[in-house]
Amino acid sequence: MSGAAEAGIRVPLDELRGMAANVLLSRGLSPGHTEAVVDAMAAAQRDECHSHGFHQLPGAVELIRLGKIDRGAVPAIDDRTPSLLRVDARFGYSLLGFRTGAPLLAEKAAKTGVAVMTINNCYHFSALWPEVEALTDRGLVALVMTQGVNCVAPEGGRRPTFGTNPIAFGWPRPGGPPFVFDFATSVIARSDIEMHRLAGKPIPPEWAVDDHGEPTTDPAAALKGALRTFGGHKGSALSAMIELLTGPMIGDLLSADSIAVDGGAALAPLHGEFILALDPDVFLGPERAVHFERAERFFEAIAAQGARLPSQRRYEARRRTLESGEVSIPSRLYERIRALEASGE
Amino acid sequence: MSGAAEAGIRVPLDELRGMAANVLLSRGLSPGHTEAVVDAMAAAQRDECHSHGFHQLPGAVELIRLGKIDRGAVPAIDDRTPSLLRVDARFGYSLLGFRTGAPLLAEKAAKTGVAVMTINNCYHFSALWPEVEALTDRGLVALVMTQGVNCVAPEGGRRPTFGTNPIAFGWPRPGGPPFVFDFATSVIARSDIEMHRLAGKPIPPEWAVDDHGEPTTDPAAALKGALRTFGGHKGSALSAMIELLTGPMIGDLLSADSIAVDGGAALAPLHGEFILALDPDVFLGPERAVHFERAERFFEAIAAQGARLPSQRRYEARRRTLESGEVSIPSRLYERIRALEASGE
Repeated sequence: MSGAAEAGIRVPLDELRGMAANVLLSRGLSPGHTEAVVDAMAAAQRDECHSHGFHQLPGAVELIRLGKIDRGAVPAIDDRTPSLLRVDARFGYSLLGFRTGAPLLAEKAAKTGVAVMTINNCYHFSALWPEVEALTDRGLVALVMTQGVNCVAPEGGRRPTFGTNPIAFGWPRPGGPPFVFDFATSVIARSDIEMHRLAGKPIPPEWAVDDHGEPTTDPAAALKGALRTFGGHKGSALSAMIELLTGPMIGDLLSADSIAVDGGAALAPLHGEFILALDPDVFLGPERAVHFERAERFFEAIAAQGARLPSQRRYEARRRTLESGEVSIPSRLYERIRALEASGE
Repeated sequence: MSGAAEAGIRVPLDELRGMAANVLLSRGLSPGHTEAVVDAMAAAQRDECHSHGFHQLPGAVELIRLGKIDRGAVPAIDDRTPSLLRVDARFGYSLLGFRTGAPLLAEKAAKTGVAVMTINNCYHFSALWPEVEALTDRGLVALVMTQGVNCVAPEGGRRPTFGTNPIAFGWPRPGGPPFVFDFATSVIARSDIEMHRLAGKPIPPEWAVDDHGEPTTDPAAALKGALRTFGGHKGSALSAMIELLTGPMIGDLLSADSIAVDGGAALAPLHGEFILALDPDVFLGPERAVHFERAERFFEAIAAQGARLPSQRRYEARRRTLESGEVSIPSRLYERIRALEASGE
């Protein structure tokens, strides 16, 4: 969700969607994958989360060019139990795996109150909040985790052992956008350190350790060492949980193993995803409305004291975009996408 | 899990258990509640988590004396769906609610892979890890949340809006104690600030805000303001999630409402608990052993670089206690328990 500091131009969002779709379809990505990928990029661009927007398109093209991703992969559903389904993304994008399984996940949650969907063997580049919102749109409460690129040390350690391991949660709100958070358990993104290195600027010592495990302000030393987790030992414990639930628990890779598979390309890691959906109607029955009204008072109590609810900036950006129909993107990125569209290779 | 700085004596753990049971039974607490409460205190004392050990006994006696808790409450199970059971603790201790529901929770998880148990209307004073360990002992992966006392501000705010909102997770490890973490989402316990106030010592500015929302080093100002969450906005978001899942999601109180019910006694808050259990056998089938072996290599990778796994200090303390059969407790506490046992009122 970092901002774009470069010179930007205003472009209709639909124009960008069309260009991105042309770029991917012309490289042989299936229509289903293309739609899922473009929707995710467009949602991020709409919400001014530039790092997950069309900024990701050149990487997607490279992932295809390198033959990493199966462009026509059709996800397979394993309907395991009344509360568990497993989706094998078959080395396609996680996003199509999610789309394929989400209706059945919601159906299971509606029957048993609680359901888990796991996605295996998927390439992942997107934020988690679009998936969370897809579930809150169905009235569900959702908790989603995945791994991210392996570059984070456990607290007290010095070697990349965790991914950036994001966790996201959503709570549907009557009459408005949901309460959603989506954050990496690393203190910062690796790209933030890279940007400091390019700018010749020091980094705060909380961000990373060098390869001796000492906190460092030198971005180059940090890139040879490892990022730190947010929140010290607590954030580190949480990151370990995410690694376990999205790796061994679902029979998928650990982030360190994923790096090995990736061969250092670091475009979109191959790994698993863990999605928990809870249906408040089953938990609360007819009292749902009363208790969700109490939750509204809780949100009001947070906002009334000047604290921001997560995702508010995103929702404000979304409102602006939906009004104008346009988004800002860096001129260079726009030109690059045009070139990719023209070359079609 | 704070240490006891006072002069301590060594006492057989079984002697303390017996004394504590006498104290509670003589005040009319039912044998079921007494056993659950004494087991939890003894487990904490065994693991040298003094703040959750027999240190809690005088507060439990006070909770009974004030008539807050229903001494004979028999938890009622609502077997809602194949993956959801709700336990009404009927204003008894959460611990007996947990014990009553845990076998059915495990049975559901074994069938569907994923199950949730909620506990409503319960008084809570204990750590979450004993409950997590009760589930990992059954081979399950567990995630447990509850609220704690309302004294924490959202990041950027200034009023107590969250409880200390602990979250705990457990992963069974073949041939040894489980991987378990259990931490409050407040940066510190309220009692730590109280201790600084009594000692006339300043507190770090990360711990709390005054009633204007400014970080403060004055413990008295902090106690009039609010604790902060760990990890800034991320920890604050996580705490909000816990508040929602253990409050409105399960039809129970928010921590701010619980304070009102409590009338300021702040002994053991009345609130709900959310327990998620996952059965790896259902997720992984016969491949469970292979993937749990990979998890062991993950734990080894953490430990090999000098980072500690959570709960290791507890397990070392446990080993010592089980060898000697004895625990250390402050002399004053021991005398107080003896006096409570003698007075029997």
